[in-house]
Formats: sequence, C-alpha cells, structure tokens
Amino acid sequence: MTKLGIIGGTGPESTLLYYRAICEGVQARLGDDVLPQLTVESLSVFEVFRYCSAGDFDGLTAYLSEGFESLAAAGAQVASLTAITPHIVFDRLVEASPVPLVSAVDAVRDEAVARGTGKVLLLGTGFTMSPETNGFFTRPFAEAGVEVVLPDAAEIEEVQHRIATELELGVVTDETRDRFVGIIDRVHRAEGIDQVVLGCTELPMVLNDSVSPVPCLDTVAIHTRALVDAAVGDTEPRPGI
Amino acid sequence: MTKLGIIGGTGPESTLLYYRAICEGVQARLGDDVLPQLTVESLSVFEVFRYCSAGDFDGLTAYLSEGFESLAAAGAQVASLTAITPHIVFDRLVEASPVPLVSAVDAVRDEAVARGTGKVLLLGTGFTMSPETNGFFTRPFAEAGVEVVLPDAAEIEEVQHRIATELELGVVTDETRDRFVGIIDRVHRAEGIDQVVLGCTELPMVLNDSVSPVPCLDTVAIHTRALVDAAVGDTEPRPGI
Repeated sequence: MTKLGIIGGTGPESTLLYYRAICEGVQARLGDDVLPQLTVESLSVFEVFRYCSAGDFDGLTAYLSEGFESLAAAGAQVASLTAITPHIVFDRLVEASPVPLVSAVDAVRDEAVARGTGKVLLLGTGFTMSPETNGFFTRPFAEAGVEVVLPDAAEIEEVQHRIATELELGVVTDETRDRFVGIIDRVHRAEGIDQVVLGCTELPMVLNDSVSPVPCLDTVAIHTRALVDAAVGDTEPRPGI
Repeated sequence: MTKLGIIGGTGPESTLLYYRAICEGVQARLGDDVLPQLTVESLSVFEVFRYCSAGDFDGLTAYLSEGFESLAAAGAQVASLTAITPHIVFDRLVEASPVPLVSAVDAVRDEAVARGTGKVLLLGTGFTMSPETNGFFTRPFAEAGVEVVLPDAAEIEEVQHRIATELELGVVTDETRDRFVGIIDRVHRAEGIDQVVLGCTELPMVLNDSVSPVPCLDTVAIHTRALVDAAVGDTEPRPGI
C-alpha cells in the first residue's frame, strides 16, 4: 500500500468527507479490516481565503507547500489537496512538492470526458469562479473539449457568501440548497448544460444527483476514488473480497 | 498556537469525532475563522486489535511509536492517541515519543475526581475491560480514590463484539444502544455506580447522558477539551470572542 498525504482544514467539513471516503474506499478494495496508510496535515480555509482575497499567490503557494513538506516528512508518498480553491496554484505546488500530487481538477475533467460531457456549469468559491483566477479550472476542461459556463456575477457573489458563512462552518440549510438548485436550473435553461461540477468540496453537503436538475460531477467522490487508486495500486485484495 | 498531533484510524469513526471537536474547540476559543494547527497520522484499529489479541505489546508499542515519530517529523509539538485501548502501552509510548503525550485516561480520571465521583462502571473494548490488561485504566482511578467496576464476562464479550463488528465500521443500531443501556442499568442496580466511563472512543456514537441511566464520562469530549487547552494555551482570543 502507498502512503497518502492530504491537506485538510481547507475546509474541515470536506476533510471529514475525504477521510471517510478514503477509509471506505480502501476497505472496499482490500477488506473491511484494512485501513489506509494516511497522514492529514490540517491547515485553514480562512488563511486560504485571506491569501486569495489579497491576491497573494506567492504567499498561498508557500503556505500550502509547507503543508506538503510536513506530509512528506511524515512519510507520505503521494499527496493531494482536499479543496478546489487552492488548486489555483496547483502547478507551482507540483514544482515545490517533494512528493507527486494528485489533482482534483484533472480527476474531475477525466470523469467529464469519460461521461461524454460537452458543457458543464462550474460552481465553487468566488475565487474558483472569478474570471481573473478561474483559468486553473476552465483551461484543462477547454483543452479536453469541455466547455465551462459560470453563474452571473450576482450569483457568484451569493454562492461564495453561502459557502464562506455556512458550509465552511458545517451549517446546512434548505434555503441554501434551494438557491443553489435555482441557479443550476436557470443556467441549464439558458445554456443547456450537461452536468454541474461541484467545484468546491463543501458543495456535496447540499447538492447531489437526487436534488440537482442536471447530473453532478461530485469532486469529492471522483477525487477520493483517484486517491484510493493511488493508495491501493497493485495491492492484492484478500481472498473473498 | 501549539501544533497538535493525533493518532487516527484507531478507529476511523472516533478520528472524525476528535477532528471535529478539536476544530470546534479552537474556533470557540479563538474565533470562527481560526482553525487548529494539527496533523493526523492515521493507523489501523484492526492492527491494534491484532497486536492485543496476540499479547504482543512490544509490537503494539513499536507500531504506535512509529506514528508518533511521523507526527513529530510533521512538526507536532504535543500529541495523543484518539482511542483508549492503545493506552494499554501508554507509559512505554511516553518514554519512546519525541514529543509530550496527553493521556485520555488521566483526563477522564481528573474529570471524575472533579465531579466528586466515588464509583464508575468502565465500558470499553475487551482489552480495556479484561482483568489481565485493564490495570492501565483501573490503577490511575484507584490511586485517585475512584472505584472502577466492570461488566460480567458475558457482557464484556458482547460489548467487545458489538464494538469490533459494528461501531468500528460506523454502524449504529438501536439494538446495540438498548443492550449497552441494559448493561449499565443492571450494573447500576447491582453496584450503585455514580457515572459510566465511555472508555472506548466509539461509544459516544451510541451512548450519552440523554440515553444512559447514569451520567456519562464521555472520553472524547473530555480528552478533546484537554487537547484544545494544550493547543490554545495562552493564545489570546481575538477581540469580541
């Protein structure tokens, strides 16, 4: 088994989703009595937001790189972020990291391509959706032939506000779910999207295929599957699994 | 802020309880937008059980010590276990660990003393309750003048079985809750206990003050409070908190 390292706390709610999904994924592959070799370095989503708000991407890179240094020191052989927003500096993190990194954006793009998706709506934090910074997400999709559309400016502001003031604190309300579904519905009618990317790892707390009017690309589910693949690799399952 | 290190995965369900409680505890003390500096080294409860079943306490000490080495390498300044059973070798871990450890058993004993408790029922894994190995728990309590009583042999076997085959896998059933409440009730009527120690960090999944016939010493709540104290120390809260 390959030892995984993940950056947690960006935010803490999605860290819980990642931790549970990686444990369950390894158990499903290797047996109920096998758990992953895993280190979680917990940082702070609020620091990430502060660096992004200040446009300090050197600072953000240094902050996250220190986390990957800690994971490598703890013996992690493959590592990842557990949030989409910090992928803004992913290319620089890959250069700085002492261990290989598994990109959530690439994992979701590969899944979109596998589903034959032509056009997606991207929901995420303001930084993930903003025209100034969203190239880290839209470019890999465009290069694979998948068009990315975004909510309008007022919707972007509202989604960011509800993520930062509710989901990052573990608060889930029907009102927020209804508003997000309303935005997906409006964009779908205006643009004819095939899928919606839950491009913030807290969004699965309120959105999934059963409430969304179009199918969801669930970043957490897709990315953790890639991480379990990286952890388990060629490990043989026990007889009977 | 002092950087914490915790050994997770022993088991994974209580790791989630610890992670959330430590994040919330730091936020309550320092503000909603402050998160802990924290590394989680995730090991395996099933390995812990295998070492204990084999009576291989040298092996258990080496397995857990390697986890503390990883936490120290990642920069943790204070560390802890997140499960009671591995406290069986706590004294040896303290000797081997490069960083100070915060004992859950000591934290719960201190809380029992603070509550003026004379007699407790100890519930936990078979290893925590077994006469051959339970000295690590009963001795610190006895030295503080708190008597520890245990379920009978059949009940011990049943509690261990339900922890290992349900709670460690995240499975919560009314039947298990009812059986545990029944055991507490029987011992309470026979022995007149003041409190019940939830001496396995998965037990708060099914037991708490609102379902138990006697008040609970919740190991997770008490231990995480001690860990937040260690993390926050003399850190000044932000104005307004």
